[in-house]
Amino acid sequence: MKQLEERIRHDGTVKPGNVLKVDAFLNHQCDVALFDAMGAEWARLFAGRQIDKILTIEASGIGIACLAARHFGDVPVVFAKKTQSINLDGDQYVSSIYSFTKQREYPVIVAKRFLHAGDHVLLIDDFLAKGNALHGLIDICQHAGAKVEGIGIAIEKGFQEGGRKLREEGYDLKSLAIVEGMDPETGEIRFAESE
Amino acid sequence: MKQLEERIRHDGTVKPGNVLKVDAFLNHQCDVALFDAMGAEWARLFAGRQIDKILTIEASGIGIACLAARHFGDVPVVFAKKTQSINLDGDQYVSSIYSFTKQREYPVIVAKRFLHAGDHVLLIDDFLAKGNALHGLIDICQHAGAKVEGIGIAIEKGFQEGGRKLREEGYDLKSLAIVEGMDPETGEIRFAESE
Repeated sequence: MKQLEERIRHDGTVKPGNVLKVDAFLNHQCDVALFDAMGAEWARLFAGRQIDKILTIEASGIGIACLAARHFGDVPVVFAKKTQSINLDGDQYVSSIYSFTKQREYPVIVAKRFLHAGDHVLLIDDFLAKGNALHGLIDICQHAGAKVEGIGIAIEKGFQEGGRKLREEGYDLKSLAIVEGMDPETGEIRFAESE
Repeated sequence: MKQLEERIRHDGTVKPGNVLKVDAFLNHQCDVALFDAMGAEWARLFAGRQIDKILTIEASGIGIACLAARHFGDVPVVFAKKTQSINLDGDQYVSSIYSFTKQREYPVIVAKRFLHAGDHVLLIDDFLAKGNALHGLIDICQHAGAKVEGIGIAIEKGFQEGGRKLREEGYDLKSLAIVEGMDPETGEIRFAESE
């Protein structure tokens, strides 16, 4: 998606350790017009698929998932939680994942009453690198008996193995921008060809 | 806002300890068409005010803030973070608040480059009870020299002191539904008259 790639080039920052900071428009400050365009693009890419729920994970996935849902007939958005709270009661699906940005294990929690056998689910998230967070969501969908119809990612780090593995596993993964390489010295960002 | 009140009556659950669970449509599963209507209502209530940024707090505020921003000319949404991560670098505004639902102190963090002196800010959050989270956001705005033009809340617990205090402090607080009382025995929910 050219608009997203241009925005990453313009406002993204490359840091040592293959870190790409996009907090100016994606995951701290949010450009909602861009999010809306991303939702329209996912709707184009997943046209013809039955999507009756969007599942994402707090916190950065929520904004893009909510704006995307408007392009999928206002389907419900469920966001998985990363911490237990007294507001989370009843039966839950719980998976466990390791976050490299938070540098710790954390749970991924979805209340059972919001994900059901036979649901056709689109997974949405802001970043895909190793794919740990997505595998937590997929694990939860499998436990619920829900079908993962597709996976919509804003930015995939194509040089890490998450995307390749998910495609090999047969998932219909659409990343709006695939970063093939980054140079923290020059700030250069190379993208794969998009669909 | 009648639509929100009816939804709370229909899908909300009253629990002992003045707990109102609205995770079916507001803070775990999200009804984006309702969020859009809430955004339109805040735009009506804050018409005439200069709003050039929306500030909210992860995680439940993000979805409603992003859909509300579309009704305020697609202004940027900044969501305050509750945990440090390697993705948060540079200078930060940090406040500290106590959460009754999480039952612990946690930080409220906004990168300094996303909030500036002279910004006209609308604060958005899903719930207002004691007002701790909002006071964290207000504290950060004061440190930044940003002006809090208004506060948009989805559900205010009118029987707790947060809303009264904020109005006494002079803030233009618009809660779309104000719960005056709840009965965990009968499930009855009483609302204050809305504007």
